[in-house]
Amino acid sequence: MSFNSFGRVFRFSTWGESHGPALGAVVDGCPPGLELSEDDLQPWLDKRRPGTSRFTTQRQEPDRVRILSGVFEGRTTGTPISLMIENVDQRSKDYSEVALAYRPGHADFTYDAKYGFRDYRGGGRSSARETAARVAAGGVARLVIPEVRIRAYLVELGGDAIDRAAFDDAEIDNNSFFCPDAGAAARWEKIVDEARKSGSSVGAIVECVAEGVPPGWGAPIYAKLDSELAAAMMTINAVKGVEIGDGFGAARLTGEQNADAIRPGNDGRPIFLANHAGGILGGISSGQPVVVRVALKPTSSILTPVETIDRNGDATEIRTKGRHDPCVGIRAAPVVEAMMALVLADQKLLHRAQTGR
Amino acid sequence: MSFNSFGRVFRFSTWGESHGPALGAVVDGCPPGLELSEDDLQPWLDKRRPGTSRFTTQRQEPDRVRILSGVFEGRTTGTPISLMIENVDQRSKDYSEVALAYRPGHADFTYDAKYGFRDYRGGGRSSARETAARVAAGGVARLVIPEVRIRAYLVELGGDAIDRAAFDDAEIDNNSFFCPDAGAAARWEKIVDEARKSGSSVGAIVECVAEGVPPGWGAPIYAKLDSELAAAMMTINAVKGVEIGDGFGAARLTGEQNADAIRPGNDGRPIFLANHAGGILGGISSGQPVVVRVALKPTSSILTPVETIDRNGDATEIRTKGRHDPCVGIRAAPVVEAMMALVLADQKLLHRAQTGR
Amino acid sequence: MSFNSFGRVFRFSTWGESHGPALGAVVDGCPPGLELSEDDLQPWLDKRRPGTSRFTTQRQEPDRVRILSGVFEGRTTGTPISLMIENVDQRSKDYSEVALAYRPGHADFTYDAKYGFRDYRGGGRSSARETAARVAAGGVARLVIPEVRIRAYLVELGGDAIDRAAFDDAEIDNNSFFCPDAGAAARWEKIVDEARKSGSSVGAIVECVAEGVPPGWGAPIYAKLDSELAAAMMTINAVKGVEIGDGFGAARLTGEQNADAIRPGNDGRPIFLANHAGGILGGISSGQPVVVRVALKPTSSILTPVETIDRNGDATEIRTKGRHDPCVGIRAAPVVEAMMALVLADQKLLHRAQTGR
Amino acid sequence: MSFNSFGRVFRFSTWGESHGPALGAVVDGCPPGLELSEDDLQPWLDKRRPGTSRFTTQRQEPDRVRILSGVFEGRTTGTPISLMIENVDQRSKDYSEVALAYRPGHADFTYDAKYGFRDYRGGGRSSARETAARVAAGGVARLVIPEVRIRAYLVELGGDAIDRAAFDDAEIDNNSFFCPDAGAAARWEKIVDEARKSGSSVGAIVECVAEGVPPGWGAPIYAKLDSELAAAMMTINAVKGVEIGDGFGAARLTGEQNADAIRPGNDGRPIFLANHAGGILGGISSGQPVVVRVALKPTSSILTPVETIDRNGDATEIRTKGRHDPCVGIRAAPVVEAMMALVLADQKLLHRAQTGR
Repeated sequence: MSFNSFGRVFRFSTWGESHGPALGAVVDGCPPGLELSEDDLQPWLDKRRPGTSRFTTQRQEPDRVRILSGVFEGRTTGTPISLMIENVDQRSKDYSEVALAYRPGHADFTYDAKYGFRDYRGGGRSSARETAARVAAGGVARLVIPEVRIRAYLVELGGDAIDRAAFDDAEIDNNSFFCPDAGAAARWEKIVDEARKSGSSVGAIVECVAEGVPPGWGAPIYAKLDSELAAAMMTINAVKGVEIGDGFGAARLTGEQNADAIRPGNDGRPIFLANHAGGILGGISSGQPVVVRVALKPTSSILTPVETIDRNGDATEIRTKGRHDPCVGIRAAPVVEAMMALVLADQKLLHRAQTGR
Repeated sequence: MSFNSFGRVFRFSTWGESHGPALGAVVDGCPPGLELSEDDLQPWLDKRRPGTSRFTTQRQEPDRVRILSGVFEGRTTGTPISLMIENVDQRSKDYSEVALAYRPGHADFTYDAKYGFRDYRGGGRSSARETAARVAAGGVARLVIPEVRIRAYLVELGGDAIDRAAFDDAEIDNNSFFCPDAGAAARWEKIVDEARKSGSSVGAIVECVAEGVPPGWGAPIYAKLDSELAAAMMTINAVKGVEIGDGFGAARLTGEQNADAIRPGNDGRPIFLANHAGGILGGISSGQPVVVRVALKPTSSILTPVETIDRNGDATEIRTKGRHDPCVGIRAAPVVEAMMALVLADQKLLHRAQTGR
Repeated sequence: MSFNSFGRVFRFSTWGESHGPALGAVVDGCPPGLELSEDDLQPWLDKRRPGTSRFTTQRQEPDRVRILSGVFEGRTTGTPISLMIENVDQRSKDYSEVALAYRPGHADFTYDAKYGFRDYRGGGRSSARETAARVAAGGVARLVIPEVRIRAYLVELGGDAIDRAAFDDAEIDNNSFFCPDAGAAARWEKIVDEARKSGSSVGAIVECVAEGVPPGWGAPIYAKLDSELAAAMMTINAVKGVEIGDGFGAARLTGEQNADAIRPGNDGRPIFLANHAGGILGGISSGQPVVVRVALKPTSSILTPVETIDRNGDATEIRTKGRHDPCVGIRAAPVVEAMMALVLADQKLLHRAQTGR
Repeated sequence: MSFNSFGRVFRFSTWGESHGPALGAVVDGCPPGLELSEDDLQPWLDKRRPGTSRFTTQRQEPDRVRILSGVFEGRTTGTPISLMIENVDQRSKDYSEVALAYRPGHADFTYDAKYGFRDYRGGGRSSARETAARVAAGGVARLVIPEVRIRAYLVELGGDAIDRAAFDDAEIDNNSFFCPDAGAAARWEKIVDEARKSGSSVGAIVECVAEGVPPGWGAPIYAKLDSELAAAMMTINAVKGVEIGDGFGAARLTGEQNADAIRPGNDGRPIFLANHAGGILGGISSGQPVVVRVALKPTSSILTPVETIDRNGDATEIRTKGRHDPCVGIRAAPVVEAMMALVLADQKLLHRAQTGR
């Protein structure tokens, strides 16, 4: 209900800025008795960590997560789990330019408009560093839903889409782009290198699939699973669009094309002959894979000068120097996974609350 | 926090089923002293009302709204406003088929999976009749934000998009499709007629623009204005995708193309040279028009038989007879407007709470 | 989160004023499949209903509850349950005096101070008629917790306490005061008659016991069962104090006196040798009876003239004519029971959400 | 809405256990631009800090608070304020006894019943050390309501009440008991010394007064100011009762005695001739001082052996060694003040949200 919290019964809050001493998350409502240590969370943070390839920002952050509460003798106690990540590489630099002028595409102007002033160091609270905290929280959420397998990967970068026929799950962790198509990954290297060298940036589309979600999670009307997922994904920096299943493509199908026919399965569970719905019907999971796609705009931090105004309202122009991801969509994949896990964990507990199952 | 409520400080809850005696909404947190009568709400309901053209369902519902509380001597008192709409045209029909078999694309299977049984009459709670209640609530929300002008219209139907060059605001109310392009409206008549005659259905894309939103509404991180809007829109029946500003298109732009440059305005307010961002930066409104697009799948109720299973898990097939919208996207436009108003009213009050402005 | 809703996952909202056309409640998050009809709710309303003895207000309200949604074929569907009660006996009278002057002890002055004006007819939203809606909602809550038996009764009226040695559970429904001590009930007749005749009023203390609550309901820190109960009870009109177990009396005990020693029970469940704690330890139920006591001030509507001011700030005096309960504590007993049921149902579901039990 | 968060728009969450590495609070929704440093918070923590006199526990905790986020250049930014306090004096001791047996009056049994196991070191999450976090959060809240002056003090200890005629505001900080009556403070020294020496403990009653609250804060029905305050106070360790104004005493008054008559004031604001209501009418502040009283049970940690059972359900007895407050009520006074500030700050912002004032 508050601005920096998400979830209903499994709920997390994040805090921290790009250039403060630390950032973190508090996870509340976690079931007791789950085995949890920092080693369970660190791998997810390592996937999101900056500075691991030449295609992401060169800021060096170890992103070591510490568990400060809520775990005793290796198990969750049911009380709040406080997670903290120290900021290490806050490079001292001159912020006088960005302190005065508004970078187009960034939250500089709107933060000033809302709050009257802003922490301009590295974007302050609006920095994507905040997502480290939710990736840590997402690691806890995964323990709540061991029956679910979540994978996020890029299906498009800089307008260049993968070939679905070349989709290889094993390939996703083999390249710097979370790309399931080796051929596309090779092309994307060039696209990102070129954007980086020319001081430009590119956008991307991330797809996330959750397998193993049983039928029944989610709820009408204002807790629809699609609505929760859309809300969750839209909180990620640079995200401008969310779709479930066929999404915008469904608007171009006929009713017959879009119908996911159902057949009896051998194990008593239904078999759907298609999944245009993306695993959600009427806001409730159908047992099919839950499929979400997320559009990320190109990084707004570019070296090319752009017209803008300063805090006095006078005309100026600005180019954003410093260390930036030429494509924020890449490192968004682990964040999208985390948000999927966080939403599903919450919905699992909500479903259990109401139905006892 | 509950399943059938939406909003944080300006909050509404809806109740009611397709074939129950009535449906309604309770609006809580409304500022006191606003002039409000049923006449202020009825026009919005009339726009959404079924049976007004041959392109929508032939169910005849007057959708008369009654205010049962929260208004005294013509003004809101600050206490909950209870709105009720009676169901009139619940045609007695044989529901035995739909009671037993699951209509693909509908919530039949998932409601049974979640709750163990379901109200199968006209879709029960999952019917789009619920949206009448929020259109009424949205009418109240509009009074909270008189500075904002909201317009929703269809930009695509059955895969046929409008010509942006032919956009005419005045045309929107001149046809049965809330279509701003007279040429497209003419083509759409044929598309919908054909779908209806062949027992098929088509999807649509609705765009909604809110002008007059001042800079500063919305909030990081988990109350971002884009996130609230996405959540709101995704609760509408048949919606499978939401995008803000350029949305998925932004993923195909470069950083330079996507940058909305800023110039000083004559009145001290900034002028943005473009609006790729759709009026939201960092989750906070920029003062530009807020632009949202929503994808609606084709109606799942089609006359063409589709393979499915019954409640016992046995194979069968079903065709959906009865009165249905061949394109649910059409009547969604007033609902999208209502959700826009409801989100913005809530955010206005939240902004006032935190900043006093 | 909103002003007129209560609960977390089992949640209800109420609406309506003393002299509006109707009032009601919307219950959200109710488990599906519970048998529910209006006949299950009416008995609780009948207990709270005015005009049943000479000791309560003579306003005649049948308080017939209608279920408008959320029930299909006699069972709850898991969707919102809308409950409506029509106001019948809004006697037309002259409200000019109360419209202008503030009745001391009532919400007249504070509503005007907050909202700028108020519905002055019968107290508007601040009237105890609102409690009819929660008694109806409480009837639904009881179905969620069939393992729990709830009893509320008066232990003191006008400063005259019951004799605990004379406590007889069967006596509670045998008199007009929900009094478990026949001797006290006889004395109270005189006290209330005298108050009524002299145009005065008296206060009361209601005790409520819930038996059958299993260990484990409630949660640290800000969802402690005692905190939820205190919040719930303090929302009832005229309540000025709440205590759990020994309450204020516990502040006068030593640690040894206050310790509820524990012994092994024959059935493997512990036996507590005392219940100073009122069934709650650390915010979580212990399996002992949950005991709450609630203090109600004397009715502020008295015939004796009291000094006050009018809306212009000028001195005047006011005496409250009309139909009033000389002791609002009497009819509060069913309301206290309802709030106990509503809190416990919510906590049961929350406990199930987190722990799966 | 979650278990370890409190508040609606000004909201805080706490985390941490008695013997973990640290504990803290995250404050969300704070208005921007308020001057805030650690020096603003430390004085409140110092008042609550243990080990400052022989009448409280001898655990030595400096309780140094660090601000980790939400403040830039000395002012709040409107983003979450993360507050952390390290635990320093977690004395290594043998917990084998308390790990196995349930201390009567403590949360040992109920935590095990709810969660299946518990952090038994110093009470884990149920320790009163958690209150340090809210005292820090309360320090932030005070900055939101500079117009309000809050004072909490003990009015009774071990059954020995102060003499209201001897009330001296200046005396409160002159003794170890936050006692406004020097004579009572002298007597209490002996009571607490005796309790400590005999391995016993005593209870207390804390009164808290907030002056300067303008008319209009709070809201009907389920956000009544009294309800919020009762919920807040009941979350404090050992609290078993809460009353507003005359509280339980009001139940023994007649309507005439209880009426707070109103007279015109010279400044256009009304003058109340009494304050039986404790500054709240119909759930909304009247402009009079808000008065709350809180009953705290005697510390459950006593040296006297008490019968209990162990985790296997077998009979045993336990005496609680270690460092404990012989009267937890003493150090509760700063916590009660903090909760008052936190509730009022939230209500101020809520009132502003709805009414713009």
